[in-house]
Amino acid sequence: MSTEPKLNAIPRDALKNIKPYEPGKPQEELKRELGIGKSIKLASNENPLGPSRKAASAIRKAIKRLNRYPDPNCFKLKKALSNRLKVREDSILISNGSDEIIVLMLRAFVNEGDEVIVGFPTFLIFEIQSIAQGARVIKVPLRDFRYDVCGMLSSITPKTRVIFLANPDNPTGTYVNKYELDNFIKSVPENIIVYLDEAYFEFAQAEDFPDSLGYLKERSNIIITRTFSKIYGLAGLRVGYGISSPEVIDCLNKVREPFNVNSLAQAGAFAALKDKRYVERTRQLIREEKQFLYEEFNSLALKYIPSATNFILVDTGFDGVLIFKELLKQGVIIRDMKPYKLDTFIRVTVGTKQENKKFIRVFKEVLNKLRSS
Amino acid sequence: MSTEPKLNAIPRDALKNIKPYEPGKPQEELKRELGIGKSIKLASNENPLGPSRKAASAIRKAIKRLNRYPDPNCFKLKKALSNRLKVREDSILISNGSDEIIVLMLRAFVNEGDEVIVGFPTFLIFEIQSIAQGARVIKVPLRDFRYDVCGMLSSITPKTRVIFLANPDNPTGTYVNKYELDNFIKSVPENIIVYLDEAYFEFAQAEDFPDSLGYLKERSNIIITRTFSKIYGLAGLRVGYGISSPEVIDCLNKVREPFNVNSLAQAGAFAALKDKRYVERTRQLIREEKQFLYEEFNSLALKYIPSATNFILVDTGFDGVLIFKELLKQGVIIRDMKPYKLDTFIRVTVGTKQENKKFIRVFKEVLNKLRSS
Repeated sequence: MSTEPKLNAIPRDALKNIKPYEPGKPQEELKRELGIGKSIKLASNENPLGPSRKAASAIRKAIKRLNRYPDPNCFKLKKALSNRLKVREDSILISNGSDEIIVLMLRAFVNEGDEVIVGFPTFLIFEIQSIAQGARVIKVPLRDFRYDVCGMLSSITPKTRVIFLANPDNPTGTYVNKYELDNFIKSVPENIIVYLDEAYFEFAQAEDFPDSLGYLKERSNIIITRTFSKIYGLAGLRVGYGISSPEVIDCLNKVREPFNVNSLAQAGAFAALKDKRYVERTRQLIREEKQFLYEEFNSLALKYIPSATNFILVDTGFDGVLIFKELLKQGVIIRDMKPYKLDTFIRVTVGTKQENKKFIRVFKEVLNKLRSS
Repeated sequence: MSTEPKLNAIPRDALKNIKPYEPGKPQEELKRELGIGKSIKLASNENPLGPSRKAASAIRKAIKRLNRYPDPNCFKLKKALSNRLKVREDSILISNGSDEIIVLMLRAFVNEGDEVIVGFPTFLIFEIQSIAQGARVIKVPLRDFRYDVCGMLSSITPKTRVIFLANPDNPTGTYVNKYELDNFIKSVPENIIVYLDEAYFEFAQAEDFPDSLGYLKERSNIIITRTFSKIYGLAGLRVGYGISSPEVIDCLNKVREPFNVNSLAQAGAFAALKDKRYVERTRQLIREEKQFLYEEFNSLALKYIPSATNFILVDTGFDGVLIFKELLKQGVIIRDMKPYKLDTFIRVTVGTKQENKKFIRVFKEVLNKLRSS
């Protein structure tokens, strides 16, 4: 009889403090667990239009060569991005989702015991991966749901190596404007990495939204990350990119796995980049439907945070986990905000017209029941 | 006028010692650089049959949902592997190529200054990523092109955290047999991770090739990794997996990115796993064609290392880089072994009958020219 083996290998101390990230519930899981086959998912800020046809067609063509390793340098995609963004090719790194760049950056620049500064609440992976790297995470609370850039600046110590900013932010949907960011960038010592996660920047239409690429001309310490998961509708493919000085990109490449981006992702993203109509259709849908949701929230007398993105943070006035569970029973998947310590809030992704209507109908029922009990 | 920004952010010390990995030359690169459009690639130990039709068809079906994030837990694929391998689902982790598990393991278990033991020459990513993690890498030279497991055991110190073994090995194609590995596993203290990279194990047909899964029943410190890149012909998709104790897998999951495996990879691998005919056809092709290549090398009076894999290490007697370049001009891509300090060797992947014939024809021409000059 074999005895159950115990773990004798000792994990790094840092692992003790990691609470795993909870992603939005996949629809297949809902089917398996609750038997609900027909559901809508407004939980992960995905593009509701399905992938662009041009991307789909490019992917189909690339299948026949899947026995070959991907291009380790993402030559074509990098060149296309370089032309589009007017930045040097060696200023770009393509990644397995833009979140891979968080890890590459930490592995390249952060030592055990170094400090990193994050907002709170914000995208949780900043914190989780920083802890995994052995960093001390300094959390600067948001003020009125916006980054407190002054508070972040005054949290800098000689041990600070990185400041993370999601712009626009997730889960609030707010943004740091041009004037705030200009000042911020100027005030951060150049030995500190400013990590600007711009996963949602294509949705941000305000005139005072900053043009972050401009900072790269004068600073080597800025990393900007973007993704094909949101406006380009390719979350399933895992492809994002980072833009920085060639010196920083070189450091990230040193710790990168040679084949981090799969070939279908490279082909799909390349085609999606050229599908300007798809991007425009998405922008228009989100603009119109966000308005619809705002109006519905107003009519329900609910507080929400005006959003520069494709999702909205709403205060339901009740326990968010309860709302999440009640909506789930009706086949509507959204996110409760408990991991972000916003206990009465939910975050809802802007879906198609039909999806948003269904969400509002079910949400109203749930709210009415709770309000009358 | 803007001055060129300098890098003020300080990379981790470890980065200074990293020499980047040089992957096999992609055929598209050859076309761009030398204008050679018609080439054969025998450089990356890929499956020459193209992807399995069943996998291709499953991938095509999954495209329409690419706007959704992948299943973060790879539920279906993990379940299928669990059934196939008769191991618990929580003993499996699916990854973005099996090499991702090297990084996850290092991040979970290895601190700055810890020691890891590798063979030399072997798969270079073990060393590169260990250096990136800040580990001290102890290299134990192979003996007669085989792992010196006794030498590895006697290199263990109180600081040793990991021992890497590729079995079968790359680039030699040799393997550690059942008796050697049984003894080795028993002799390694259980607080040290034994990392068994079995990327090529499906090609290893010898009776004394070890059944490594058996070790998991008694030891918690073994990590076995396998891949869909080789015998399953899906290198472009990036999907591999690790098998270990649930305790170790739990640690790896803590540092893993939630969406590390893209959805087409999950769908393709799931289908490929069931395509037993494809795997059998591959095995047969490699067996027959390896024999063909052995005979040709014999007739050329060249020393080669009998291989348990789908590639062969050959001593050309001349500078391997020169041979590589000469073959490249004729549209044949192989690998020189300079990064492995085997200066007169090349490594050639077993291709289709036609590819192998072309390689031999061109190789003979190059050799004859060199031998007669």
